[in-house]
Amino acid sequence: MSRFLTHHAAALPSTVPFTGPETLERRQGRAFRARLGANESLFGPSPRALAAMQAAAAEVWKYADPENHDLKQALARHHGCKPENIVVGGGIDTMLGLLCRLTLEPGTPVVTSLGAYPTFNFHVAGYGGALTRVPYAGRHEDPAALLAAAGAQTARLLYLANPDNPMGSHHPGRVIEDLVANLPPETLLLLDEAYADLAPPEAIPAIAADHPQVIRFRTFSKGYGMAGARVGYAIAEPGLALAFDKVRDHFGMGRIGQIGALEALRDQDWLAQIRRNIEAGRDRMGRIARANGLEPLPSATNFVTIDTGRDGDFARAVLAGCQERGLFIRMPGVAPLDRCLRISLGPEAALDVVEEILPQALRAAGG
Amino acid sequence: MSRFLTHHAAALPSTVPFTGPETLERRQGRAFRARLGANESLFGPSPRALAAMQAAAAEVWKYADPENHDLKQALARHHGCKPENIVVGGGIDTMLGLLCRLTLEPGTPVVTSLGAYPTFNFHVAGYGGALTRVPYAGRHEDPAALLAAAGAQTARLLYLANPDNPMGSHHPGRVIEDLVANLPPETLLLLDEAYADLAPPEAIPAIAADHPQVIRFRTFSKGYGMAGARVGYAIAEPGLALAFDKVRDHFGMGRIGQIGALEALRDQDWLAQIRRNIEAGRDRMGRIARANGLEPLPSATNFVTIDTGRDGDFARAVLAGCQERGLFIRMPGVAPLDRCLRISLGPEAALDVVEEILPQALRAAGG
Repeated sequence: MSRFLTHHAAALPSTVPFTGPETLERRQGRAFRARLGANESLFGPSPRALAAMQAAAAEVWKYADPENHDLKQALARHHGCKPENIVVGGGIDTMLGLLCRLTLEPGTPVVTSLGAYPTFNFHVAGYGGALTRVPYAGRHEDPAALLAAAGAQTARLLYLANPDNPMGSHHPGRVIEDLVANLPPETLLLLDEAYADLAPPEAIPAIAADHPQVIRFRTFSKGYGMAGARVGYAIAEPGLALAFDKVRDHFGMGRIGQIGALEALRDQDWLAQIRRNIEAGRDRMGRIARANGLEPLPSATNFVTIDTGRDGDFARAVLAGCQERGLFIRMPGVAPLDRCLRISLGPEAALDVVEEILPQALRAAGG
Repeated sequence: MSRFLTHHAAALPSTVPFTGPETLERRQGRAFRARLGANESLFGPSPRALAAMQAAAAEVWKYADPENHDLKQALARHHGCKPENIVVGGGIDTMLGLLCRLTLEPGTPVVTSLGAYPTFNFHVAGYGGALTRVPYAGRHEDPAALLAAAGAQTARLLYLANPDNPMGSHHPGRVIEDLVANLPPETLLLLDEAYADLAPPEAIPAIAADHPQVIRFRTFSKGYGMAGARVGYAIAEPGLALAFDKVRDHFGMGRIGQIGALEALRDQDWLAQIRRNIEAGRDRMGRIARANGLEPLPSATNFVTIDTGRDGDFARAVLAGCQERGLFIRMPGVAPLDRCLRISLGPEAALDVVEEILPQALRAAGG
């Protein structure tokens, strides 16, 4: 341990939110046959976006536009808001960190769900926030309980993902709207909409971009199939949006991703096709789960969470069995959600691998 | 201003370290004829790296390896150290921010040079550090004065760039080695070697990667011509290097840049060619400067700093005149360095634009 670390930094754990599939492949000494653990889009990016990125690579000697001007303009048009409502950043993970930095001091109360996105928790801990975790209500995050906790804790931030990861569930937009209407005045809702592009339209709440108590996060990593390009964005009232300029890495955006995202946004036909691919994938993943005596949970995302009907030890054994047989999947990290497996969707060939390996892993786990 | 900001965040200025050339182009309503202000490499990336990036774009649906394993292994071989000495991140700017986060609390003393890299100052202010700025000794950062200030302030961090930006000067490696040998025990030297790949070999100090009081920063943005790919790295003792895992964005690296950097590192012949191109560019820029009655300062970088022999107001007028005529350049931000202009090197066609526009701008400024 370096003696130059702050006390706070020295005390932070070295655990990481997720182990990457490459690390698992190195440990196992071979590549996975199907990479369905990180909710990446195996359908890839729009061919138009891909062509734009390949062309942009030749100009990668240039820094990206630090204002993200063209992308902000296009996103504002896409969402029917002002460019001043948009913050562009290197993926939602990065932007969660920036928001925590802007809003949290040691001990600032924050509320999330027990089992929700761990990278948010990583950033809250990183800035010393005091995190309260509210249990899910079955397969859903529990808006009433989250609101109650936010009020009881006088929370500065309330995290909610809709659609939800890791359960794949969603609340209708009107439920989120009700939650917003009842936020304690001290609380900012951090609405993680990473999967919104793949959700049914009724899942998307109508919230004014200028609402002073809501910041929404979107990404090009999921529906748009550009996880490795690192482009995410937030929609917030201009006062909050502008505050990111105080702390963000102004020249930190990759130029190739910035240009690719702009073209991806223009190719909404591709996104519509991806939505159809995902729907077909959900159907097939449902059949695979049921054929193995497991329950596929309804999904508004590009993954299906499968309830094993057993406990976390069983699900972990199945997951390990899948991984050692060449199928990379993940699962919720905490009980009681950890009775489930979370499998990303993809083309037929990838789901063929699930169909082949899942029953083997279930048998090996004594299922 | 959002009411959810911390007091510290609310008090931070909204000023940004640099205005991007795209912003200036939008203001002027037309593109620059030559982009020589950001020390980008107009010679571009290695063709092998470009091919690797274009191939990687097709797999941009995958997140990058969060461990940066292959790149760390290759960098360790390149520098003759252990992979545990290497931290990979999204450019030096990002990594400066992470180091400040790991080491600074409000009021922690930090020492740099007056006029040195402003993005470092941006991060120091962002984390509340108390910055002392030591004047340059002529065209050079002043090691003895920096050491004295670090001792007097009990500085946690001492920033030094070698070669230097914005002056392009360098100290011989042995001067840096002497500085390291005399560091106060409370001080970590942050040695910014962004331009090291373009410097004479004697500018590079011999410092053990495991030295507990030094962290060196390198980048693929300058010599390797990949500024828009966002890949930098640090070399430090393993205890400090590992600490970055506590706060870094583990899935924040772009996949295309990660893969491109690995190939760029393998193509050292390209880098050698770039060094020859830069040397030729320095010679020509020197001739252009002298033909205009200005003094080109010796450069160990991919830019030449030109002393106008007048004051900051004059240099700012010349800079404005260059920009409005289509030549993007920059200049040091504070006196007395602001008597100079800083012009990046590039191929002949770009220097032709300098040769054409610089005398016009000088005349217009009354030079």
